[in-house]
Amino acid sequence: MKRDRPDPGVSTIALLTDFGLQDVYVGVMKGVIARIAPRVRLIDLTHAVPAGDVRAGAFRLWQAVPHMPSGTVFLSVVDPGVGSPRRAVAVSAGGFTFVGPDNGLFTYVLTDRKVLRAVNIDPTRVGAEAPSATFHGRDIFAPAAARLAAGDGISDLGPDAPELVRLPYPRLAVEPGFPAIRGEILCVDRFGNLVTSIGVLRRTGADIVLHPWVPTCEAMTLPATGMRVILPGNAPLALARTFADVSPGEPIGYIGSDGLLEIGVNGGIAASLFRAAPGAEVVLRSP
Amino acid sequence: MKRDRPDPGVSTIALLTDFGLQDVYVGVMKGVIARIAPRVRLIDLTHAVPAGDVRAGAFRLWQAVPHMPSGTVFLSVVDPGVGSPRRAVAVSAGGFTFVGPDNGLFTYVLTDRKVLRAVNIDPTRVGAEAPSATFHGRDIFAPAAARLAAGDGISDLGPDAPELVRLPYPRLAVEPGFPAIRGEILCVDRFGNLVTSIGVLRRTGADIVLHPWVPTCEAMTLPATGMRVILPGNAPLALARTFADVSPGEPIGYIGSDGLLEIGVNGGIAASLFRAAPGAEVVLRSP
Amino acid sequence: MKRDRPDPGVSTIALLTDFGLQDVYVGVMKGVIARIAPRVRLIDLTHAVPAGDVRAGAFRLWQAVPHMPSGTVFLSVVDPGVGSPRRAVAVSAGGFTFVGPDNGLFTYVLTDRKVLRAVNIDPTRVGAEAPSATFHGRDIFAPAAARLAAGDGISDLGPDAPELVRLPYPRLAVEPGFPAIRGEILCVDRFGNLVTSIGVLRRTGADIVLHPWVPTCEAMTLPATGMRVILPGNAPLALARTFADVSPGEPIGYIGSDGLLEIGVNGGIAASLFRAAPGAEVVLRSP
Repeated sequence: MKRDRPDPGVSTIALLTDFGLQDVYVGVMKGVIARIAPRVRLIDLTHAVPAGDVRAGAFRLWQAVPHMPSGTVFLSVVDPGVGSPRRAVAVSAGGFTFVGPDNGLFTYVLTDRKVLRAVNIDPTRVGAEAPSATFHGRDIFAPAAARLAAGDGISDLGPDAPELVRLPYPRLAVEPGFPAIRGEILCVDRFGNLVTSIGVLRRTGADIVLHPWVPTCEAMTLPATGMRVILPGNAPLALARTFADVSPGEPIGYIGSDGLLEIGVNGGIAASLFRAAPGAEVVLRSP
Repeated sequence: MKRDRPDPGVSTIALLTDFGLQDVYVGVMKGVIARIAPRVRLIDLTHAVPAGDVRAGAFRLWQAVPHMPSGTVFLSVVDPGVGSPRRAVAVSAGGFTFVGPDNGLFTYVLTDRKVLRAVNIDPTRVGAEAPSATFHGRDIFAPAAARLAAGDGISDLGPDAPELVRLPYPRLAVEPGFPAIRGEILCVDRFGNLVTSIGVLRRTGADIVLHPWVPTCEAMTLPATGMRVILPGNAPLALARTFADVSPGEPIGYIGSDGLLEIGVNGGIAASLFRAAPGAEVVLRSP
Repeated sequence: MKRDRPDPGVSTIALLTDFGLQDVYVGVMKGVIARIAPRVRLIDLTHAVPAGDVRAGAFRLWQAVPHMPSGTVFLSVVDPGVGSPRRAVAVSAGGFTFVGPDNGLFTYVLTDRKVLRAVNIDPTRVGAEAPSATFHGRDIFAPAAARLAAGDGISDLGPDAPELVRLPYPRLAVEPGFPAIRGEILCVDRFGNLVTSIGVLRRTGADIVLHPWVPTCEAMTLPATGMRVILPGNAPLALARTFADVSPGEPIGYIGSDGLLEIGVNGGIAASLFRAAPGAEVVLRSP
């Protein structure tokens, strides 16, 4: 059995949008892809990015990318400016290609991946002589992703795009007068867990090592024991390993599966217990 | 690279139902298909058609069909009369095959596609000796679609079905004393945009040409500038090109990606702003 | 055309989780699988099992399994004890393989399928040298399922797991002083139908035969006519064949597509009409 070896016959398009699943919009994009690249494999990352929330889309894309097969084309459409002069781009970086609007959606995945090439997609190069003004996912981005998956080079899609739009980074900063790291809640997941900007954290023996995922913070080593997680206005929480380390109904902080600090409740819903929402401050404090 | 050319090894079944995704019903249909046609490609159009709403299913099917690969089999199940004497049919038209209950679900896709053949599916021809009385999606429609995708001819499924059930068409009419076209809201999409029955509209230079998608209305040419969109009881809206043509929070009318008149709000939710729901009247008026 | 014959080139992984679709968790598992087993077919059963509800997951798995292709690997993750000492297992039974946490999730599918082999998955055998403490779906279960689908034997994954955790069975009992069978509501489906534990029931001519799906009840034959379905506190309902057997808005009992007694309303929502929820008692009574 061969594993982790590129299969020349299978290329992947991973889809991430804010289209939801109640309309046929996602299905229509898949039909467009199937007509151009019949044998491509499709993986839905999520279509439930909050409508028009580019930052939330950028974060979910950052979560997903490391786990996708090498060579995956990411068809990423959170596009509140569709029809405006914002550019449509394809970006080659880190062995992947990212296709979508140039509105900052790729900011986080490009933090530690060097851009090899970025192009401004020319609609006529992807068969879109008269694209609609409101559904570039169907008319421009899906055909572009399909052609890339079918073997076209990124340069076939249009001229170089010199500067990509970048979002501000989430809050992640070491307090003057360490030891405290300040961040913010980035998202509430399906289980009501609060995913924060504080990370990437990895346990190594008696230490936790912070390799920050955003360039606004320095790497550092913290003690693994005695750390406290603070949502201002609430009692400090222990930094534990997993939900089962506390009693049912009890809250904890833990290092989530993406290496970010999270806050959860064993068998419960942290977002309800703390009435916390994205943007709220979180502090990780040394003993 | 070859594109838009049928790939003999890949056939497609596109699924549209009102089953939702919280149960295993859709997954079960896919298992049934996989046992009969292991190499077929599946595309989910949507499974969130409002429960039992045949008309809403018919409209979403109409939206999706033009973008699917030639030869696609549409497994379409919105079936409030399951178990009653309503027929189960397969219909060949426009290079596609439509499989589902004969309750009007195919009315809109058959408006401008000539029916080549329609058959009344005989359950015993698809291996359903004793179908359940409540889940024909699993017992009759999925096996029928799978056999078609695997190469069976439509005539293998049963005898001819002479007359198909047809739904009434949505309202779309030219006001005596033009220039006003009256239609209705057909659906509210994920973004809260109001999709109306007024279309199909295409801009050509200084004109908008109406090629009506339902046979109750005549084709006509309208001026592209100065048109007003009216939701009775509200101020008239300009007919613009896309959301970004107005300020954030402002409503507009625009020609949506299916060629239908839509009403949206830049960065907002038209359905909330106007408290409008399917069935409400909409007027497109010339200057 | 050949049907129902195993296709040596296509293996199937069926996914059932409580992860929801709003995050990228399901997509990430699919990426992990695609890297190990590029040509596997994926079927989503559902990802909307109520969070942490092992019993609900076990029931939905029971509903889906009979319809999947022989040889399917079930990647099943409802795992409130993730990170605790609960075991990760792979179980071979009935021509299928079940992968997931050893918390009772496989209780119902193993009722009438003999376990050929069950193993305790060793994370290092599936490439998980340092699995996260909160996402074993990604780090252990998805790679295990992918390796099985790609041809590994179950014994390659770890040592034998002697005793599997089992859930209590749903209530299903013949009343002393027959004729009454007592059960409970197991779930409310997308249409608001109440699916009960009373079954498996099959009509055969003038009789209904009960082959109980749980070992707490005996097989028996009931008269097909005159049976009454009782939700305590409500008027008895007739046992009919399908929704269309009663007037719109009227409730009925019927044998659902899984052979379980269900309660529904023609064109309506039984869960609203009866304000009934999982766990509530239901009685099927002979005339």
